[in-house]
Amino acid sequence: MRDMTITSVVTQSAPAAAGHYAQAIKHAGLVYVSGQLPVSPDGIHHPEADFDQQAQQAIRNLIAVAEAAGASGESLLKVTAYIVDVANWPHFNAVFAQMLGDVRPARTVVPVPELHHGYLVEIDAIAACRD
Amino acid sequence: MRDMTITSVVTQSAPAAAGHYAQAIKHAGLVYVSGQLPVSPDGIHHPEADFDQQAQQAIRNLIAVAEAAGASGESLLKVTAYIVDVANWPHFNAVFAQMLGDVRPARTVVPVPELHHGYLVEIDAIAACRD
Amino acid sequence: MRDMTITSVVTQSAPAAAGHYAQAIKHAGLVYVSGQLPVSPDGIHHPEADFDQQAQQAIRNLIAVAEAAGASGESLLKVTAYIVDVANWPHFNAVFAQMLGDVRPARTVVPVPELHHGYLVEIDAIAACRD
Repeated sequence: MRDMTITSVVTQSAPAAAGHYAQAIKHAGLVYVSGQLPVSPDGIHHPEADFDQQAQQAIRNLIAVAEAAGASGESLLKVTAYIVDVANWPHFNAVFAQMLGDVRPARTVVPVPELHHGYLVEIDAIAACRD
Repeated sequence: MRDMTITSVVTQSAPAAAGHYAQAIKHAGLVYVSGQLPVSPDGIHHPEADFDQQAQQAIRNLIAVAEAAGASGESLLKVTAYIVDVANWPHFNAVFAQMLGDVRPARTVVPVPELHHGYLVEIDAIAACRD
Repeated sequence: MRDMTITSVVTQSAPAAAGHYAQAIKHAGLVYVSGQLPVSPDGIHHPEADFDQQAQQAIRNLIAVAEAAGASGESLLKVTAYIVDVANWPHFNAVFAQMLGDVRPARTVVPVPELHHGYLVEIDAIAACRD
């Protein structure tokens, strides 16, 4: 019989789920982090932020949720980043490199036509956790 | 040595795989459900269905495949929904909330320019299973 | 305490990571393969390749990375293919069928508006590995 414990992750260090989903779900040593937009943890939107600022905030939110789940930036396994306009690829990569340092997870960058609230980047991930 | 048992899931409660893929794959306590379009389980297409009807059918298919694999709506861990036109986001969220009830998996909603057969929504997922 | 061993996969049989990511990450019996574009393993770009050739090269890269991680085409669990123009769906499916043979993983084909370097197809996957 497999471990069927499924735990919802809730943290005020990242924006609250703005729909019918959890910030993240833990199960069997993995953390599934929901798509993180560049919203401030207090829920304030910043539509004027440029791409780099948006990428920074989305990654901060992603890591905050991962940490609340007992994971961390170091335990990210696979990151999927959705970006508007593939011309932003180098910008995303540079911010990602700066914020993750020596950590290089598996990654796919997916160009999309648009994102919720007009944002330019959204990020989700699977991470490993200890419990 | 890890568990290398990989099981293909086949059910008539959801539309048959319409290409070179399985409806779902089971491995080591996880079920990977393939992208589900709003096709009826008997394979009949409904191009005239509105967004809400399409979302309902795609979610029904997703849950049917999960159940055939020994998972369920309750054991969904991560859902990725691909939608045409981000203006449909609130519609998707409302249908999702209605159909999942108290269950709130991790989720990413990904706007795309188009989907197969002109549909407006497609959904895949990772779920936990007992065996 | 869960297994927190996270291993980066590096192989010259597929193009080197062209950004801040690993070709693949291994953890707890799963391999997360990063998005593979139709670049040659030696890093040479082929912008003139048609869709079928691009799909073949991307799948070759995906399988090469999986094999370097101790997985294989046979142990693919979930494949996500990002394609430009949904009219390429049947072409992708045919190449995928030809190259995978009897193996039918879970799969989602996601139409996108564009991909990096102007390519028409990119593929990532989760696979099972023995160690």
